[in-house]
Amino acid sequence: MLQDYQLLRIPGPTPIPPSVQQAMMKPMTGHREQETKELLNSIRPSLKKIFGTNEEVVIIAGSGTAGLEAAVVNTVSPGEEVLVIVTGSFGDRFAKICKAYNLHVHTLPYEWGSALIPEEISSILVAHPSIKAVFATYCETSTGVLNPIKELATTIKQTSDALVIIDGVSCVGAVETKMDEWGIDICVTGSQKALMLPPGLCFIAGSKKAWNMIEKNHQPRFYLDLRKYHKTIQENTPPFTPALSLLYGLEQSLSILESEGLHQVYKRHQMMKEMTRAAFKAIGIPLLTTDKDASPTVTAIKPDVEPDALRKTLKQEFGLVLAGGQNNLKGQIFRIGHMGYCTPADILQIISCIEIGLRKIGNVQEIGIGVKAAQQAYLQGDGV
Amino acid sequence: MLQDYQLLRIPGPTPIPPSVQQAMMKPMTGHREQETKELLNSIRPSLKKIFGTNEEVVIIAGSGTAGLEAAVVNTVSPGEEVLVIVTGSFGDRFAKICKAYNLHVHTLPYEWGSALIPEEISSILVAHPSIKAVFATYCETSTGVLNPIKELATTIKQTSDALVIIDGVSCVGAVETKMDEWGIDICVTGSQKALMLPPGLCFIAGSKKAWNMIEKNHQPRFYLDLRKYHKTIQENTPPFTPALSLLYGLEQSLSILESEGLHQVYKRHQMMKEMTRAAFKAIGIPLLTTDKDASPTVTAIKPDVEPDALRKTLKQEFGLVLAGGQNNLKGQIFRIGHMGYCTPADILQIISCIEIGLRKIGNVQEIGIGVKAAQQAYLQGDGV
Repeated sequence: MLQDYQLLRIPGPTPIPPSVQQAMMKPMTGHREQETKELLNSIRPSLKKIFGTNEEVVIIAGSGTAGLEAAVVNTVSPGEEVLVIVTGSFGDRFAKICKAYNLHVHTLPYEWGSALIPEEISSILVAHPSIKAVFATYCETSTGVLNPIKELATTIKQTSDALVIIDGVSCVGAVETKMDEWGIDICVTGSQKALMLPPGLCFIAGSKKAWNMIEKNHQPRFYLDLRKYHKTIQENTPPFTPALSLLYGLEQSLSILESEGLHQVYKRHQMMKEMTRAAFKAIGIPLLTTDKDASPTVTAIKPDVEPDALRKTLKQEFGLVLAGGQNNLKGQIFRIGHMGYCTPADILQIISCIEIGLRKIGNVQEIGIGVKAAQQAYLQGDGV
Repeated sequence: MLQDYQLLRIPGPTPIPPSVQQAMMKPMTGHREQETKELLNSIRPSLKKIFGTNEEVVIIAGSGTAGLEAAVVNTVSPGEEVLVIVTGSFGDRFAKICKAYNLHVHTLPYEWGSALIPEEISSILVAHPSIKAVFATYCETSTGVLNPIKELATTIKQTSDALVIIDGVSCVGAVETKMDEWGIDICVTGSQKALMLPPGLCFIAGSKKAWNMIEKNHQPRFYLDLRKYHKTIQENTPPFTPALSLLYGLEQSLSILESEGLHQVYKRHQMMKEMTRAAFKAIGIPLLTTDKDASPTVTAIKPDVEPDALRKTLKQEFGLVLAGGQNNLKGQIFRIGHMGYCTPADILQIISCIEIGLRKIGNVQEIGIGVKAAQQAYLQGDGV
C-alpha cells in the first residue's frame, strides 16, 4: 500500500481543503492586535448565515463537547428540570452532561437508528411544566439520523416556554439550519465536521431569549461562561486567547462555503446521501435508518459481515477509513462520513471500494451494482 | 461545485503526498552547510535504486527538458551523427534539441500510439556506423506507450558503440528501470511524475561509458555541464545553488517509495494500468495503444465524443482534471495520468466519473460497466 495515502471518510474529523490547510500556516498574530479583530469581524457575518440567525455566534477553543457543556451550564441550574431526547450516543452525552450538573433529567429515548417524533414531546412538556430546556440532537452522528428539528422546535414553542437546545455538531454547515425562523434557542457545532477544519473550535449560537436566560443563570462557570464571550463579541475581543490558526482556517473554509453557495452546499450533501443510499439498496445490504430519517452527512450501514473486519480490509487495501458503531451499535454497523470536503466523486470511490471489500470478506457474488446505482442517482439529479 | 476541490489526474504534475508537502515547508538551510550535505547524502543511494544503477545520479534544478538537453550537450558535438527514435511528442522534443545543437540527426518515426521495434534499429546503426548516440523515450507521455527500452539497449549494444540515451521522465520510479543491467548509458527523469514532487528538478544518471564521453565532450555548456555536478557529487557539494525545498520533499518521497517497496510500487502501477484498460474495453471505447505497448503510468483513450468537451464536463462536475491530446493527437484523445500518489481506489473514482461524463455528453446508454470491469481487474490481482 502507498504510504501516506488515506481516504478519510469518517463522520469527523473530515479532510481539510488545501487552501484551509495553507491558511492555518499563517504566522501567529497578537490576539489583541488589529489583525485579529479584523479576522473575527470578517468571520462573524458568515457564521450567522450558517446558523440562520441574526444573533452573534460565540466561538470557543474547545471540542464539540465543550460547546454542549456550555449550552447546559449557561442555561439551567442544579435541580431544575430538563428533557433530553436521546436518539443515540450524542443524545446520551447531553444527558450525561445534564446529570453531571445535578439537573433533574427526564430522558426520552428512541431506538438507535430512528428519529425523534416531535408530537411525542408535547405530552411530556404538558406533564412536566417545570421543564426549563429541551435538549436534542440535529444529526445523531452515531446512527446517521437527522432529527426533525424544525418540527420539534415548533411543537415545543406551542406547548411550553422551555428553551430549545440543539446539538448540531455533525451537520450544521451541511444542512439547512434556520435558528431564528424555526425557533431554536441554542445551537452548537464543532469545527471538524461540515466546516472542514481540524477539531478544536466549538460554536454556540443563541436566540434573544437564550441570551436573557444566560445572563440570569447562576450556575458557577468560568471558561465556558458565554456571557464573557458575548459581552465583547461585537468589539471582536474574545475573553480568552482564541485558537488563532483554526480561525485563519475558518475564515478560508467559510469563504469556500460562500463561493459554492450554501444552497448548493446543502444540495451536494443531499446528493451524496442519495447516492450512498441508492448504492446499498442496490447491493442489498440494510441501511440503519429509513430514507425519511437519514442525514445528508453520515450513513450507517448494517452489513451481513463483521463490520470491523470490513473496515480493516478497506483500510489495508485502499487506505479507506470508515467509522464503526458506537456503544449500543458497536460491532453491528459501519458508518460513512460524507460531509465537508467531500463530493459525489468521493461517494463513487467509496462505494466501489466497499463493494470490493464486501466481495473479499463476504459472500457477495456480483460487484459493480452499488456504484452503478450511485452513478444513476447522480445522473437523476441536476448537478451539484 | 465545491471550491478548492480537484482530482488531478494528468500525467504530471501529479498530486503531492501531504508528508512531502509538509517536508517542503522546512525552513531554508544554507546550501553549503552540513545539513544540506547530509540531506544530499541520504538521497543519493535511494535515487540509485530507482534508476537501477551503482553510478551516481545528478540532480539539477530545472524541468525535465533541462535534463534532456543536458543528455544531449554533454555527450555529442555539432556535426556528429545521432539517431532519435520518435514515438510521440517527447521523442520529437529530443530531435528538436539535437537539431538546435547542429547535430546530424537521423530520426526513426513511429505512428503515434505504437511502440518502437528494437529490431528495426540495427539496420540503421549498420548503415550509419558513425552514429554516436541513440535517443529514445521510455514512456511516451503523449501517447501512453511504454517503449521496450531493455530490448532496445540490448539490440544497440549488439550492433554499435553508440550511447543509449533514454528519456524516462514520465515513468522512472513507477516502472522497473535497470540501467546497469540493461546497458542504458544515460537516463533522465523529472520530479513531477512518479516521484510525487512539484516540477523543478531533473535527474540524470549515467553509465561509466557515458561519464567517459561526457568528460571528453567539447560542446560548450555551463549550467548543464554534467561534469561540474559529477565532480563533487560524493562530497555532496553541488556546483550551483540546489532547489532546497524540492530536495526536502524528495527525501520524503523517496522514503515513501522505499516504505512501500519498489517492487510493490511497480505492481501498483501495473494494476492501475490493467484496471483502466479493462474499464475502457468494457465500455467499448478504443484505447490508443495495444496492451503490449501500454504504459503503467498514463493511458490514452480515443472516445467517440469530442475529448475536450468530455474533459470540460468532468472538470465542471467532479473537479476531475484529465489531459488532452498533444500535437498530432490534439482533439483526438484524452489521457489519464495514473502515477505517483495514485492508487487503485483513484482509478475506480476516475472511471466512474468518466462514465457519467460520457453519458452526459455522448450516447452511452448503460453506465457502471467500466467501473465494474475495473473492480473485477482489481479482484483478479493479488493485492497492491
